[in-house]
Amino acid sequence: ALPIAIMAGPCAMESRAHALETAQALKEIAERLGIGLVYKSSFDKANRTSIESGRGVGLAAALPIFAEIRESLGLPVVTDIHEANQCAPVGEVVDILQIPAFLCRQTDLLITAAQTGRVVNVKKGQFLAPWDMANVAAKVTGAGNPNVMLTERGASFGYNTLVSDMRGLPIMAQQTGAPVIFDATHSVQQPGGQGATSGGQREFVPVLARAAVAVGVAGLFIETHPDPDRALSDGPNMVPLVEFEALIAGLMRIDAVAKSLI
Amino acid sequence: ALPIAIMAGPCAMESRAHALETAQALKEIAERLGIGLVYKSSFDKANRTSIESGRGVGLAAALPIFAEIRESLGLPVVTDIHEANQCAPVGEVVDILQIPAFLCRQTDLLITAAQTGRVVNVKKGQFLAPWDMANVAAKVTGAGNPNVMLTERGASFGYNTLVSDMRGLPIMAQQTGAPVIFDATHSVQQPGGQGATSGGQREFVPVLARAAVAVGVAGLFIETHPDPDRALSDGPNMVPLVEFEALIAGLMRIDAVAKSLI
Amino acid sequence: ALPIAIMAGPCAMESRAHALETAQALKEIAERLGIGLVYKSSFDKANRTSIESGRGVGLAAALPIFAEIRESLGLPVVTDIHEANQCAPVGEVVDILQIPAFLCRQTDLLITAAQTGRVVNVKKGQFLAPWDMANVAAKVTGAGNPNVMLTERGASFGYNTLVSDMRGLPIMAQQTGAPVIFDATHSVQQPGGQGATSGGQREFVPVLARAAVAVGVAGLFIETHPDPDRALSDGPNMVPLVEFEALIAGLMRIDAVAKSLI
Amino acid sequence: ALPIAIMAGPCAMESRAHALETAQALKEIAERLGIGLVYKSSFDKANRTSIESGRGVGLAAALPIFAEIRESLGLPVVTDIHEANQCAPVGEVVDILQIPAFLCRQTDLLITAAQTGRVVNVKKGQFLAPWDMANVAAKVTGAGNPNVMLTERGASFGYNTLVSDMRGLPIMAQQTGAPVIFDATHSVQQPGGQGATSGGQREFVPVLARAAVAVGVAGLFIETHPDPDRALSDGPNMVPLVEFEALIAGLMRIDAVAKSLI
Repeated sequence: ALPIAIMAGPCAMESRAHALETAQALKEIAERLGIGLVYKSSFDKANRTSIESGRGVGLAAALPIFAEIRESLGLPVVTDIHEANQCAPVGEVVDILQIPAFLCRQTDLLITAAQTGRVVNVKKGQFLAPWDMANVAAKVTGAGNPNVMLTERGASFGYNTLVSDMRGLPIMAQQTGAPVIFDATHSVQQPGGQGATSGGQREFVPVLARAAVAVGVAGLFIETHPDPDRALSDGPNMVPLVEFEALIAGLMRIDAVAKSLI
Repeated sequence: ALPIAIMAGPCAMESRAHALETAQALKEIAERLGIGLVYKSSFDKANRTSIESGRGVGLAAALPIFAEIRESLGLPVVTDIHEANQCAPVGEVVDILQIPAFLCRQTDLLITAAQTGRVVNVKKGQFLAPWDMANVAAKVTGAGNPNVMLTERGASFGYNTLVSDMRGLPIMAQQTGAPVIFDATHSVQQPGGQGATSGGQREFVPVLARAAVAVGVAGLFIETHPDPDRALSDGPNMVPLVEFEALIAGLMRIDAVAKSLI
Repeated sequence: ALPIAIMAGPCAMESRAHALETAQALKEIAERLGIGLVYKSSFDKANRTSIESGRGVGLAAALPIFAEIRESLGLPVVTDIHEANQCAPVGEVVDILQIPAFLCRQTDLLITAAQTGRVVNVKKGQFLAPWDMANVAAKVTGAGNPNVMLTERGASFGYNTLVSDMRGLPIMAQQTGAPVIFDATHSVQQPGGQGATSGGQREFVPVLARAAVAVGVAGLFIETHPDPDRALSDGPNMVPLVEFEALIAGLMRIDAVAKSLI
Repeated sequence: ALPIAIMAGPCAMESRAHALETAQALKEIAERLGIGLVYKSSFDKANRTSIESGRGVGLAAALPIFAEIRESLGLPVVTDIHEANQCAPVGEVVDILQIPAFLCRQTDLLITAAQTGRVVNVKKGQFLAPWDMANVAAKVTGAGNPNVMLTERGASFGYNTLVSDMRGLPIMAQQTGAPVIFDATHSVQQPGGQGATSGGQREFVPVLARAAVAVGVAGLFIETHPDPDRALSDGPNMVPLVEFEALIAGLMRIDAVAKSLI
């Protein structure tokens, strides 16, 4: 199996300057570590807990910035989409279209995303079993696009809590053949856990990331931010950018052992 | 508190004749029982487990049929919507716009539905706690529409199983002031439980409906079909139409006692 | 089906005077309501969250008090046991031996309790499915004692929370033929939810009791105390004695309707 | 942190010959790998799903065999106890007394086990949160015995399923300072999942063991048997003895990396 790759970046795009600066820093880290990295950021947080929360710069402002990151830095880019009519314009400037977990069963969104020809990364719904994702992946491949990836981000466990069932990683890989990613950022989310916002437990990102890598995954999804406590979204569970390189370096060492065992 | 009302009909609209026939039968039952009834049917099953499953007649074919049911039978009508651009046209012919559980946090969908001025019935996500629905309701009321209803349809409980926490019914009512409906049909669903389709346990519809009515609800959502085992969708958890009247009559008797106690 | 009976009393026996006073009050309530009542109290809280919590008067002190309640008031008595060697002495003075939920799979305890010839009431473990209780009941009946009862008291739902699946009540009844009781007190417990003690939500006792009675049960288990906030154990989820009669009277009205429907 | 140690052996003691043969094989594996190993076997399966299932050789027959394994092979020994009166006799011949998960809150059992002076290994109840184990550990240490270990073996996740929350491992370690063990055998159990017996998923033992070791644990608990499909108990989730050495060798390599990172 290939070494892990990384999908990383700030949860929400905050500005052109912020995006380019973070992408540049991540590109340098990836080069130093010799790891594949896809830049991730959302142009719209379309399903925030509360209507009071910020949503990001929006589609129109974001697309040229994604294009600039791809061209000037040579980094591939991933972002999430929420309605079928976003697939075509977004698909023109990003490498991977990501389907949010809540929307992972919306047939039209999956098919329209598939029809762009871009890679489609589907996050597993918090309400689904790992084996349920075979039907989800089939909606993409059935639309003629074999490039589907699946991402684990925790399952509902009582109220306002998620749990990561590590058995789900090999189950999804075996049943679909798709690359399986572990999202260590949202797996430590506490949905709605702070009343009008979701809480998180940043200190468990490395814990669950180590576990997933030891089990064996194609890659990790880890949001990072220069100053998480001032981030527009998901601050409680983003890793400070200054800690990112050491975290990934350690995970690469576990990955090397794990891939030699499986 | 007012006596319960009922939202009922076949899960998916199958044809004009099928819709009118079922609506006529339900209207007669409601008149005999002296209960308020809203006719429910979906024009599109937009998030089926598998891409192989049927989806319904579609928006364009369904709207005139909903209009006909309203006009010829005088029944109010509810149906669910999946993308923001469906709100305006559907809002012109139905009384209640329903937000599916998976989509209950999609801000644009909630706001656009609210802006139609129609009643908005939001199903509680399987991944949410009852208290999380206060933020959801606020997205609708914050858009200037006070007519929001909330519907319980079960919470994720391990894999391929839902559980109905009856405490959630008064919690949602107290926190939002909105009418709270119990969906006895989807609460007995076994999501993904038959591989490429969701299973269900029709025999528990009356059980959970009795429990919810005794707790105290504004209404019930119960799908019914003349021949559930040949239904396009959700057959395993729909009540046969022939059993519907007796079921509701019994529930009305429990409701009368419960409302006198609360 | 027969009308509901009630198992009620303070969680822990606190003193002879306290026990007799509470039993007398409950006897009078039961007579006024015309309902069967079994007096419940524990002589030892053998599995408290923390070692700092009180445990009760102990077996030796409690047995004469149980005997006195039976003889002077004519009330049947139930108490819980924790090790096999308690079955014989306790069985001599009580009518029903109760197996705590954590211990519901301990084969020796079940068999020894069965061998006393007393009724054995087994609480369903928070870690079991309703259908798992058929094997549990068979351990009692297989030891030659057909008088087994099963009590639902909530299932684990994430951390520090229980949920009551109302489907479990008819499932247990149908699979075993045993009378099924709903424990409305411990079903609203929040295990470990206050750090060194378990929390509770007393306000949901009537809510869940109404639900269970509407589903159809043989009886209810509801702990009550003259002053719950000063109780030795389970204060947060006991019903104040002063509210008990009205609560039961309302439940009897729901029961009468529900039993006529099932 | 120290390298991992292993608690291993057949779930139930089947005979003297079987025990000595397995212990000898495990001793040789441990010596080749340079890892600490404690021999584990149960003399009584006191809480089997069904009364029809085998229970083991019993206390009286087992104690001399444990003594023989300790003396002739020099292996430390662990076994589980079920009632307080077993603590003293069992404590005379084993190194570690293990408290079963169902019994982890039984105060008398914990205190009596503590009073033997032996190490006490408490399995975390399927119904407890990781932070709830601080109160459990305090029952042992409060009885004057600082030598307490805590073992994770999965949390209830819906019906007939367990899930392993890897965050629980560091939480328990940080809150108690106790060595934390991951039980990879019972974490893949499907309680009651085969009707009258518990099922299991042996293929996930290495998966979850790799995850736990990468997170960081003091040791692993892995049951192994020369012929699991003919084992008296827990066959579906035991590792065949012939695969044991390679499994542990791989886990030691992950452990070396993980311990260098934490």
